[in-house]
Amino acid sequence: MAEKIIIDTDPGIDDAMAILLALRSPELEVIGLTSVFGNATIEVTTTNALRLVELEGNNAIPVAQGCGQPLVLPLGEVGTYVHGEDGLGNTFLPPPKGRPLSLHAAQFIIEALRRFPGEVTLLALGPLTNLALAASLDPEAVTLARRVVIMGGAVETHGNISPVAEANIYNDPHAAAIVFRAGWPVTMVGLDVTTRVVMTPDYWNELYRAGNTATDFLRAITPFYQSFHDQFYGMGGATHTHDPTAVVYLLAPELFGTQNLPVYVETQGRCMGQTVVDWYGQWKDLPRIDICLSVDAEGVLDLIRERLTKPIEESEDETTVD
Amino acid sequence: MAEKIIIDTDPGIDDAMAILLALRSPELEVIGLTSVFGNATIEVTTTNALRLVELEGNNAIPVAQGCGQPLVLPLGEVGTYVHGEDGLGNTFLPPPKGRPLSLHAAQFIIEALRRFPGEVTLLALGPLTNLALAASLDPEAVTLARRVVIMGGAVETHGNISPVAEANIYNDPHAAAIVFRAGWPVTMVGLDVTTRVVMTPDYWNELYRAGNTATDFLRAITPFYQSFHDQFYGMGGATHTHDPTAVVYLLAPELFGTQNLPVYVETQGRCMGQTVVDWYGQWKDLPRIDICLSVDAEGVLDLIRERLTKPIEESEDETTVD
Repeated sequence: MAEKIIIDTDPGIDDAMAILLALRSPELEVIGLTSVFGNATIEVTTTNALRLVELEGNNAIPVAQGCGQPLVLPLGEVGTYVHGEDGLGNTFLPPPKGRPLSLHAAQFIIEALRRFPGEVTLLALGPLTNLALAASLDPEAVTLARRVVIMGGAVETHGNISPVAEANIYNDPHAAAIVFRAGWPVTMVGLDVTTRVVMTPDYWNELYRAGNTATDFLRAITPFYQSFHDQFYGMGGATHTHDPTAVVYLLAPELFGTQNLPVYVETQGRCMGQTVVDWYGQWKDLPRIDICLSVDAEGVLDLIRERLTKPIEESEDETTVD
Repeated sequence: MAEKIIIDTDPGIDDAMAILLALRSPELEVIGLTSVFGNATIEVTTTNALRLVELEGNNAIPVAQGCGQPLVLPLGEVGTYVHGEDGLGNTFLPPPKGRPLSLHAAQFIIEALRRFPGEVTLLALGPLTNLALAASLDPEAVTLARRVVIMGGAVETHGNISPVAEANIYNDPHAAAIVFRAGWPVTMVGLDVTTRVVMTPDYWNELYRAGNTATDFLRAITPFYQSFHDQFYGMGGATHTHDPTAVVYLLAPELFGTQNLPVYVETQGRCMGQTVVDWYGQWKDLPRIDICLSVDAEGVLDLIRERLTKPIEESEDETTVD
């Protein structure tokens, strides 16, 4: 039986790829998307979530809009310098057909956890605000989650949005602190692994050659993302693979080396958003989570290629980029 | 001509080894020791500094007592759990013959810099309080230093006194921030290299077989240090090599790989004492210092062994452990 997942997401170019990957993976049953601010404003990310379910005919999957700002901090700069003003590489696509549910993302999450006790995995690809809100609204529902897998954090490598912080954690560090200690099993798929999975220009071209709806869409939105990676890291057209790697963790955990470790999230000062592992138990009362520290990068890339390049039966509701 | 150095130190077991190593190295002319709190209280570290110059007949080298507490923060726990109540592995040696100068360590440093413009290297093996005070008292003297080499900090590895902080920086983070931006050339010999230089029980035994004053002294004081490393890291009698590695940097810089990088010192919160490198220039106005990031550990160990095991002409003033 496929694993029921809710994807909490701020699409976002790599979110888009991750969502398409999840939707094309029979091991996963995506029962909803919940949107959050982050790579763009909440209005933009919600619109993009709708576009993404519609792209390959998954219009039946509901989208619930979530938080437009962090729990405690004021809204800072959103990630449009990485993802474009429209969150999808400045492709400015036509509006989606569908609309989000009237239910708040946090409530949607709680209802799903209560409806399918022990069955639902939360895959968080953006700031953890919606998950923190759900855990605070209904602490009991937390006990009903199958697991929480997040793309976020950096332990043995440097940050991206700051020298020490990964962007999803930085964008709402208080939410991350709440989610880490909420009591559900959390796995962190962070920069320690996602920056080691590098999509080269050749890899991107291989994907594009498939010429299906998903890869045509990626061909349109990815150049902006490549351009950011080149300006910031000098990667010459290659990109890191953040959100899709978290999806692959669900599909093929054997490609990852994880350790269960106590983690502190810094919520203030210059080091805000840093996920500090307490290797020697020097700090007390920290939650323990599973942290991916090593990865078979080729294995991850192979799986992503396989899923995204295969033909797919397209429904009548399909929306295309062209 | 030998390089004039002042060793600012909080002996301390590894400080003791570093001082003996420096005194036995003809490339260096130790023109004074300045003491600071850290591995033990200032009274203890000053007494030990005197013991160490007397051990192999270097009684002519002056010792100036420095700060007994950090610049801004209250005095926290000193490092006697690593170095013993007496800072020398609970060997409780007889008192030294000599006394410290009446001059404060910071004033001693300033006078030396002014007397030998461009010639004096400051080698800091403890918290940076004395150096920060000297830089604040006489900012012009800073321009007269040849260079500052510090044992401290952690960049690409975890901390020791906390998950993110090395003890010398943690013990006075404000002083470190002052020293890093004072304007003299600073090289950081931190945990990135010192924890890779490991003295095994076999290595220690090799040293002890020399049976000279220095190695007999080390044989007495080291077991406490080994015991700490075993309890904390499970190293089975092996030890890291902190302060002596900083001396070797002065003797053989070719054994180290360094990078000149912008560094921020966190002065508050849980991450206090962390030395954060701003790899991508995301933070503005940070001082740049040279940071050792790689090391030829065997080369360092060979040089230390060579210097400490050689016979030395002993003067009449010699003090022995036995």
